[in-house]
Amino acid sequence: MADSQVYRASTTAPVNIAVIKYWGKRDPKLNLPTNSSLSVTLAQSDLRTHTTASCSSSYTTTDSLLLNGQDQDVSGARTQACFRELRALRAALEAADPTLPKLSSYPLRVVSENNFPTAAGLASSAAGFAALVRAIADLYQLPATPTELSRIARQGSGSACRSLFGGYVAWEKGTAADGSDSLAYEVAPAAHWPNMRAVILVVSAAKKGVSSTTGMQTTVATSSLFPARANETVPLRMKQMEDAIKARDFETFGKVTMKDSNSFHATCLDTEPPIFYMNDVSRAAIKAVEYINDAAGKTIAAYTFDAGPNAVVYYLEEHEKEVAGLFKALLGDKDGWDGKRGGAVQANAEALSKVDEKTAAQLKEGVSRVILTGVGEGPISVTEHLVDEKGQAVKA
Amino acid sequence: MADSQVYRASTTAPVNIAVIKYWGKRDPKLNLPTNSSLSVTLAQSDLRTHTTASCSSSYTTTDSLLLNGQDQDVSGARTQACFRELRALRAALEAADPTLPKLSSYPLRVVSENNFPTAAGLASSAAGFAALVRAIADLYQLPATPTELSRIARQGSGSACRSLFGGYVAWEKGTAADGSDSLAYEVAPAAHWPNMRAVILVVSAAKKGVSSTTGMQTTVATSSLFPARANETVPLRMKQMEDAIKARDFETFGKVTMKDSNSFHATCLDTEPPIFYMNDVSRAAIKAVEYINDAAGKTIAAYTFDAGPNAVVYYLEEHEKEVAGLFKALLGDKDGWDGKRGGAVQANAEALSKVDEKTAAQLKEGVSRVILTGVGEGPISVTEHLVDEKGQAVKA
Repeated sequence: MADSQVYRASTTAPVNIAVIKYWGKRDPKLNLPTNSSLSVTLAQSDLRTHTTASCSSSYTTTDSLLLNGQDQDVSGARTQACFRELRALRAALEAADPTLPKLSSYPLRVVSENNFPTAAGLASSAAGFAALVRAIADLYQLPATPTELSRIARQGSGSACRSLFGGYVAWEKGTAADGSDSLAYEVAPAAHWPNMRAVILVVSAAKKGVSSTTGMQTTVATSSLFPARANETVPLRMKQMEDAIKARDFETFGKVTMKDSNSFHATCLDTEPPIFYMNDVSRAAIKAVEYINDAAGKTIAAYTFDAGPNAVVYYLEEHEKEVAGLFKALLGDKDGWDGKRGGAVQANAEALSKVDEKTAAQLKEGVSRVILTGVGEGPISVTEHLVDEKGQAVKA
Repeated sequence: MADSQVYRASTTAPVNIAVIKYWGKRDPKLNLPTNSSLSVTLAQSDLRTHTTASCSSSYTTTDSLLLNGQDQDVSGARTQACFRELRALRAALEAADPTLPKLSSYPLRVVSENNFPTAAGLASSAAGFAALVRAIADLYQLPATPTELSRIARQGSGSACRSLFGGYVAWEKGTAADGSDSLAYEVAPAAHWPNMRAVILVVSAAKKGVSSTTGMQTTVATSSLFPARANETVPLRMKQMEDAIKARDFETFGKVTMKDSNSFHATCLDTEPPIFYMNDVSRAAIKAVEYINDAAGKTIAAYTFDAGPNAVVYYLEEHEKEVAGLFKALLGDKDGWDGKRGGAVQANAEALSKVDEKTAAQLKEGVSRVILTGVGEGPISVTEHLVDEKGQAVKA
């Protein structure tokens, strides 16, 4: 009797925002980076991908992936690499134990949903590939650790390897040609420094800039300043940042975060042709953070920008009024202040007078929504499946 | 009988716009740079400072400087250094030949006028100090060469040393602690490559950014990428640029010009706190140049930005329609298209369709005026004095 059961496993996975940026591949095929990086995992109640991996001998289709109701092309080398590596691990288990069902030979059907708007321009590929790899690993009942899985998720999307962990996560660049030592590890769990918060200012951009894959390759090929960043600056900052996190030293954490974001964007500007991800609204966000820190007399807020104009501002819960509160006073009419986190923020109207008119006007005009979040956990196994017992995709 | 004659000498001096940027001092007092730089001297018919240096035993005031009708403070270390060095050279002449009048002991009265609006945000200090040094050297009848005078002008304002020459001018950073080998020299005269043109897009900025003196000191102190620029990138580019100028190779000249401007602004962004001189209008100018070069299939236009948002776009006369003509089609209603140069430019309306709407709108909104100019001569001795025979300041 053929086994026609639909096997399923579901997980949610978080977004992460780097404080030491990944920019540059030493091996584009394996997504091996030119430098190590470090990120904060953000809370899944605010931003997450929910993914169900399923397989069945009854599936007549080939491997498929449905994201937010849209069929995705899975023929790309990155998705294929993840499927192939996970199947190989499953096949090894099956070879060792012939009683196991031969899941590695069944077509995969993966269904994913994000709880945040794609239009927000938040790097969703990290959460997406982390969830995909974690869900398939669970489906296949692989005994692999998150660090072992990070080697696979990294081949889907570099920064995805960091979304396999909660809290504070480093990705060691490694030196092996096959990428076997280019792995993510936990620097500290979320519980170690749980009061880390982030406010994300989503900046409306007319169109997406250069893709990060193309951008980083061009930077490596043309920027004369890039080697100094990859070889000298980042190794030093990785150490400073790990120490700051272990010591819960926000002053250092914040300063290094801002410096590293600027260093990354500096190498983008030094690319030929130059790449600009930040715009005048991003710069207004930097100014606002500088006002906040000047008023506090120390670093209580730290901006960072990925490959786009959105600002992510880290701060500690105890400074919520000074940091998020200033943005609420300035941008209180934008989407995102509802809900538990946004509603709890006290608008800091008295600090508004410190912000120059032009900066205030640029932020009001250019920010389309805000997202309030904080440090959070890694992937979580869930029983809510996006594929039913017959193998059909269902809504969460 | 006391000699109460008013001695006078007048000169005009040009603005220069660097294609390899000066950014960083290894000695702030002597204005000794961390890297060599290279500039194009712009035509004085479009942009110049006119200066008369005078002295007389009958002057009852101390040394003075009148710029555009405004009394300037001459007590600063920079102006004092120029006065002191020039007086010392004169005093040596007087010591060698006792028949010479003792001009070195007389108070100086210097009067200057610019033929361009100060509000344009063009670095006028280069032309200003070059004219001041050249005029006093002429007043004192010093046998010094422009290169010898460059050592003095550099102490007034670093880039002023390059305005003592016409055409294509390098400033060798030198290595001596006393700055004796930090001198400017002519790479090629204007006549060697006379068809070099420039269109300057003057961008209205709400307020001036960080001063270049403060900015470059902060960059040297805080940017981790800066040493790579100063020690590796610039020396290579100086050689490429000198070769390109000698070979009249615009393709290389243009590419290196753009790369070096971006490299300089990258180190500004990598400064703590970050320095932004370019804004979204500057970036729109970069885009427009990229459209022009894409349409031509080669580099026929090259942007460069000093410590402010204004774009200077170099091109050759034979590409006037493709380059300046595009900006005329886009910005024909702005000030600056009148006069001999601006009137001669054919608006390139058919190329407008290549420019995306947002870029066009940003340029139209953000550019306040244009200046059409080209490569030109160094300081020129003139008989039109801004001080009359009685020592009174007069209008040109």
